[in-house]
Amino acid sequence: MVEEKYMRRAIRLARLGTGWVDPNPMVGAVLVKDGKIIGEGFHEYFGGPHAEVNALKNFCQAEVPSWDGTINEMPVREMMEKILESARGLLQDATLYLTLEPCAHEGKTPPCAGFIVESGISRVVVGLKDPNPDVNGKGIGILRAGGVEVTTGVLEKEIRSLNEVFIKYITTRDPFVVLKTAMTLDGKTATITNASRWITGEASRKMVHRMRQQLGGVMVGVNTIMFDDPQLNIRLQARKKWKNPLKIVTDTHGRIPLGAKIFKQDPQLALIATTGLASKSRLRDMERLGAQVLICPVKDDRVDLRFLMRSLGVMGIDSVMIEGGGALAFSAIKAGIVDKIVTFIAPKILGGKNAPTPVGGDGIPLMEQAVMLEDMKARKIGQDIMVEGRIMM
Amino acid sequence: MVEEKYMRRAIRLARLGTGWVDPNPMVGAVLVKDGKIIGEGFHEYFGGPHAEVNALKNFCQAEVPSWDGTINEMPVREMMEKILESARGLLQDATLYLTLEPCAHEGKTPPCAGFIVESGISRVVVGLKDPNPDVNGKGIGILRAGGVEVTTGVLEKEIRSLNEVFIKYITTRDPFVVLKTAMTLDGKTATITNASRWITGEASRKMVHRMRQQLGGVMVGVNTIMFDDPQLNIRLQARKKWKNPLKIVTDTHGRIPLGAKIFKQDPQLALIATTGLASKSRLRDMERLGAQVLICPVKDDRVDLRFLMRSLGVMGIDSVMIEGGGALAFSAIKAGIVDKIVTFIAPKILGGKNAPTPVGGDGIPLMEQAVMLEDMKARKIGQDIMVEGRIMM
Repeated sequence: MVEEKYMRRAIRLARLGTGWVDPNPMVGAVLVKDGKIIGEGFHEYFGGPHAEVNALKNFCQAEVPSWDGTINEMPVREMMEKILESARGLLQDATLYLTLEPCAHEGKTPPCAGFIVESGISRVVVGLKDPNPDVNGKGIGILRAGGVEVTTGVLEKEIRSLNEVFIKYITTRDPFVVLKTAMTLDGKTATITNASRWITGEASRKMVHRMRQQLGGVMVGVNTIMFDDPQLNIRLQARKKWKNPLKIVTDTHGRIPLGAKIFKQDPQLALIATTGLASKSRLRDMERLGAQVLICPVKDDRVDLRFLMRSLGVMGIDSVMIEGGGALAFSAIKAGIVDKIVTFIAPKILGGKNAPTPVGGDGIPLMEQAVMLEDMKARKIGQDIMVEGRIMM
Repeated sequence: MVEEKYMRRAIRLARLGTGWVDPNPMVGAVLVKDGKIIGEGFHEYFGGPHAEVNALKNFCQAEVPSWDGTINEMPVREMMEKILESARGLLQDATLYLTLEPCAHEGKTPPCAGFIVESGISRVVVGLKDPNPDVNGKGIGILRAGGVEVTTGVLEKEIRSLNEVFIKYITTRDPFVVLKTAMTLDGKTATITNASRWITGEASRKMVHRMRQQLGGVMVGVNTIMFDDPQLNIRLQARKKWKNPLKIVTDTHGRIPLGAKIFKQDPQLALIATTGLASKSRLRDMERLGAQVLICPVKDDRVDLRFLMRSLGVMGIDSVMIEGGGALAFSAIKAGIVDKIVTFIAPKILGGKNAPTPVGGDGIPLMEQAVMLEDMKARKIGQDIMVEGRIMM
């Protein structure tokens, strides 16, 4: 089907914004006339022009002789005016494929729905209605009121999955939580002597760094800091400048060693989630190192994870990856804060009745109470297999 | 490549013999002339005509007017003579694609290499040289000496994998051992209260029954009998008559309850592998129920699994699937008897620091000592994911 073909292209473009637009959604746009793509674009970075604007700009750059190269330096509002002026009369039979409904509200840039109407585009195909309660349907309403023909729901499922972080955050204001684990094919995260370097291969570890770059925060339990002392930053080749995630440690009693690596580099990105059970002077020491300290209520003798997530949401953190500790993983699952599980399975067997596993804690006593996943998928990453699934709510 | 195309067809045919030919190999044959398939066949059941004979029979049935329908009732030797007579002069430019080198020795049927030479076929493409030390290259030698052009090694890797059981058994006389496990995505085989019904979905469980049909024996530890009391037979729709596997239980101290389900149906297929540590009268009770009792040496306080495998091999059991018990799984891995691991992963999380996992026991202390797998593959079975890999020797 031709509509899916162009929408698929728009999804591919949208994906190029991964890690740069949050907490905005990733959006792609493809402009088609007479069966030919005449312009395309995507939302490239937070605060930058929206996908629709970039697609029309791309069209103008290629097709309009009078086009002026300095456009990229213009403020977005001025850029949009310039585009409308240049494209006037050229788009009457064009169709714009948009992964997401155009915005209807004045934000960092003027609303796109009105911009599309004014551009004279005759038809818009929308993948997903904007789940943002401030938009939901309003953008489409403006298009229709302006005489634009609108089709919706093309490849909606794929686009939902692409924007799962945005959808969770915009509708709940809680961050989207990924539980990431790494284990052998017999379900072990370390040997019986707690050796865990390395379970998975290099390709998987690189993938984890890429995932960190795409999420707002990385969270581990204090035991992981004590056993492994991870850096929790992004170590990838510096082709782009990476934005490091917030390094969150749940530490009910304030036991984290002050010499931990997470305090060495970018200590301002370290956030210790603790409780009133920790010693005040200890917490002051952490703050002196430059770290943020968040005192949470106690729930089941531990940091209240729901409270923590709500606080992170308020701080603008739209997504968190839980990276370590079977105890923390079980608390997170039990608290119902996990949206998705990503498990890397290594081609190894370690054995050991008492070796650690990805999700520990007290466990779920009855099979009927098991936490269920949906849409479980597997994919090879180097020698390992990556399995992911969404928690059924 | 045209040779791979016909060999792929031959492999598909060979696979139709799965579960019926062992301990013989699965073999497929495709006869091609002027770019057209003029006959095909496979080794259908143990003791039956070989694939090459069936392919030529298939050719004769379709092409030779004088062909007599009573051929299927003839003894194989007579059938082969009849085929040679009917096909005389018709195959000079034909090529025969064979997944496996033709046999050179008089077995249950006359050797196929001479049969091919006499048929007048001008060219043979062989996938895999027969790993059987009694054949290895002799069949090809006979073909070449008879003036037949021979090409070897087409899709060899696929054919090796297809005949992994046969290759292991014919070269070592030990059975090929598959360790089958079923776990949640967090590596648990049961809840903390030992509830294990059901971890995986119906499609996976059906698949396990199909695997049982393809292997000579199914093996569990006595604890699995005590906790789950499985039947260890094949319960599939009766489209074909299934051949049930040998039900092997490792039971160092002879603790198996005499009321266990495996003694109820086909008790003669139950084999209790025990040691001198078991009470003699208890073993006699088992024999009285119709079960076989095999007394093995003690190794590390348990049944010596290498001895057990050697004994099963001598009994003609070419393959065993280990189906249960983390302790048995670890002993088997440690004893080095496992060739392949097949793990079904269910879309569930159970948690529990003390919940059972697929491979228990003492475990491997250092990461560098981990047992490594190669060629790990994943595939969706219903809602579950099946991961398989071969143990690196």
